[in-house]
Amino acid sequence: MSDDCHSPGRSTSGQSQSLDEFGLIQRFFVDQNSYSNVWPFQGIGDDCAILELGCTRLAVTTDMMALGTHFLEDADPFTVGQKALAVNLSDLAASGATPKAFFLSLSLPAVDVAWLDGFSKGLLKEAATYNCPLRGGDTTKTASVDGKPGKTCFSICAIGEISSGPAMTRAGARAGDDIWVSGTPGDAFACLGEIWKEFTVPSRLLPYFKARMETPTPRVHLGTQIRHYASACCDISDGLVGDLKHILERSNVSAVLFWEDFPRSEQMSLLPELVQQRCILAGGDDYELLFTAPRSVRDSIEEIGKSGGVKVTRIGEILPSGIPLRILTKEEQSLPVMNSFNHFA
Amino acid sequence: MSDDCHSPGRSTSGQSQSLDEFGLIQRFFVDQNSYSNVWPFQGIGDDCAILELGCTRLAVTTDMMALGTHFLEDADPFTVGQKALAVNLSDLAASGATPKAFFLSLSLPAVDVAWLDGFSKGLLKEAATYNCPLRGGDTTKTASVDGKPGKTCFSICAIGEISSGPAMTRAGARAGDDIWVSGTPGDAFACLGEIWKEFTVPSRLLPYFKARMETPTPRVHLGTQIRHYASACCDISDGLVGDLKHILERSNVSAVLFWEDFPRSEQMSLLPELVQQRCILAGGDDYELLFTAPRSVRDSIEEIGKSGGVKVTRIGEILPSGIPLRILTKEEQSLPVMNSFNHFA
Repeated sequence: MSDDCHSPGRSTSGQSQSLDEFGLIQRFFVDQNSYSNVWPFQGIGDDCAILELGCTRLAVTTDMMALGTHFLEDADPFTVGQKALAVNLSDLAASGATPKAFFLSLSLPAVDVAWLDGFSKGLLKEAATYNCPLRGGDTTKTASVDGKPGKTCFSICAIGEISSGPAMTRAGARAGDDIWVSGTPGDAFACLGEIWKEFTVPSRLLPYFKARMETPTPRVHLGTQIRHYASACCDISDGLVGDLKHILERSNVSAVLFWEDFPRSEQMSLLPELVQQRCILAGGDDYELLFTAPRSVRDSIEEIGKSGGVKVTRIGEILPSGIPLRILTKEEQSLPVMNSFNHFA
Repeated sequence: MSDDCHSPGRSTSGQSQSLDEFGLIQRFFVDQNSYSNVWPFQGIGDDCAILELGCTRLAVTTDMMALGTHFLEDADPFTVGQKALAVNLSDLAASGATPKAFFLSLSLPAVDVAWLDGFSKGLLKEAATYNCPLRGGDTTKTASVDGKPGKTCFSICAIGEISSGPAMTRAGARAGDDIWVSGTPGDAFACLGEIWKEFTVPSRLLPYFKARMETPTPRVHLGTQIRHYASACCDISDGLVGDLKHILERSNVSAVLFWEDFPRSEQMSLLPELVQQRCILAGGDDYELLFTAPRSVRDSIEEIGKSGGVKVTRIGEILPSGIPLRILTKEEQSLPVMNSFNHFA
């Protein structure tokens, strides 16, 4: 089960018990049955499941999203369609797979032609941009609640191919590896935090942050290129530190991050330092790639970044296990290791 | 997009416009973009999409379901879990694929441990029975409606393999072919019709019908066996006549059905003739296979039925196009061609 989350709306139903999303999967959906003649696989806790078909290797991911939870209810349906596919493509990118096909399940309270028109156009535009065609799906009606229409929700299952070489997972980081990140994480949360009234953002900067929240860029091409060099990779959906922790746990290592080395957009650099830390370290919804690679391939990674149209930045180093994760400033002070988003927590 | 439906709960939100489920897919989700280097595929309007990977062939299907729409809200979670996977396995069976893996997206209003325990156990039991392991998924929170918790819903994406020979589709029926059906269709709707108060059923018969509704048997083994003989195939989710019409449209042929030849369970044969017609011809939720095959392989199909543990019955014949579909009694009277279920209609 993937543990990716992304949540522009605030969840309001407060009946969840102590099990969080990860505990829920562990407790109920770890299968003790035995199977015969199945495809070998890896990927529990990764962005994708990697299925070994013998003649090729597939990466498969699925994400379920709803208006009112993952999207603002009045979000532009075109960008909702774009992002619905983008977050799945981002999972494929994190495993280094080339997108090949996706499937859409769509649950609607009613047929809203204007919404469907925008949503489908955004979805199919994203499909065309990343050469990942819609190959099937299902439509149904959302159950109403006490006579009131339920919310629109949808699930996408995307399939990518890794025809040669290994898939990237979260499990391969080794002490001494560099820690890299693509793009400028935190920008999406600069909009979301404003919506959630955690902080305020100058209104002239909001359009940029809103665009980064609504139309994240899945790093598909970067993923396929770094696959031959990276030791571990994930996409940033929960927040940089939270997602890094997944790599550290799966790889049984620790890390140090250097705060001043973090990339930040021009717009982000105009926000107060504490807001920057909140957004960049624990914001989430970035869909940038966070990956580790041996120092020996540093030049190759730099080169891929330059040629691939997206900046990649070294932000830290993998350390042996047993050392606490630290985020250092240039004065060697430690920043608090902020927690990030978790459904049901 | 698949056009399978299955609907034990009654949908209550009445804001849908004139577009039905099929029109909705046609209007919004037919992609005019061009793609390069993608897997060739077939399957628009079939139970599964068939993806040609070069070295092998995959069948992929997805179904979205919700408590309160596809399942009664108080349905036993164990059987909900079983059926959630079964309806997807039934789609794989209709293409003749061998199940290989499935993915679950689960949207919950809150963590209900008892429900999750039953649901996951039923789901994983079905997975073990049909050798189709859970390989990934996503969990999220259902958006609330005016502060009230939304409904539990889930989407499954199942992948099967057809390693040699062609996939079955709805498009290959030819005039002169026999029409076959597996099992005893109509039993599920005998329960559903009672719940919907369309008719009443003697209470001593209800447990049998309820079991057929709650735990349909996906005809996975049968599907893989008839694949080399059948000219067209689908599973019965919307109702036998409605699903047959899909085969007729896709194959550009017509058909005649012989009512007295239809298989019926001992329990069904105790219901009034008109109720039998309603259930068997237009009930839906059967998940039996409806397929066509040349007369020349009649003996082979009979043999597969005898050895495979499920009865297969010849119920009609494919005719050239242009002739109206008819359902004849032995007195050569025509029965009304009943319509079947369609979301958003």
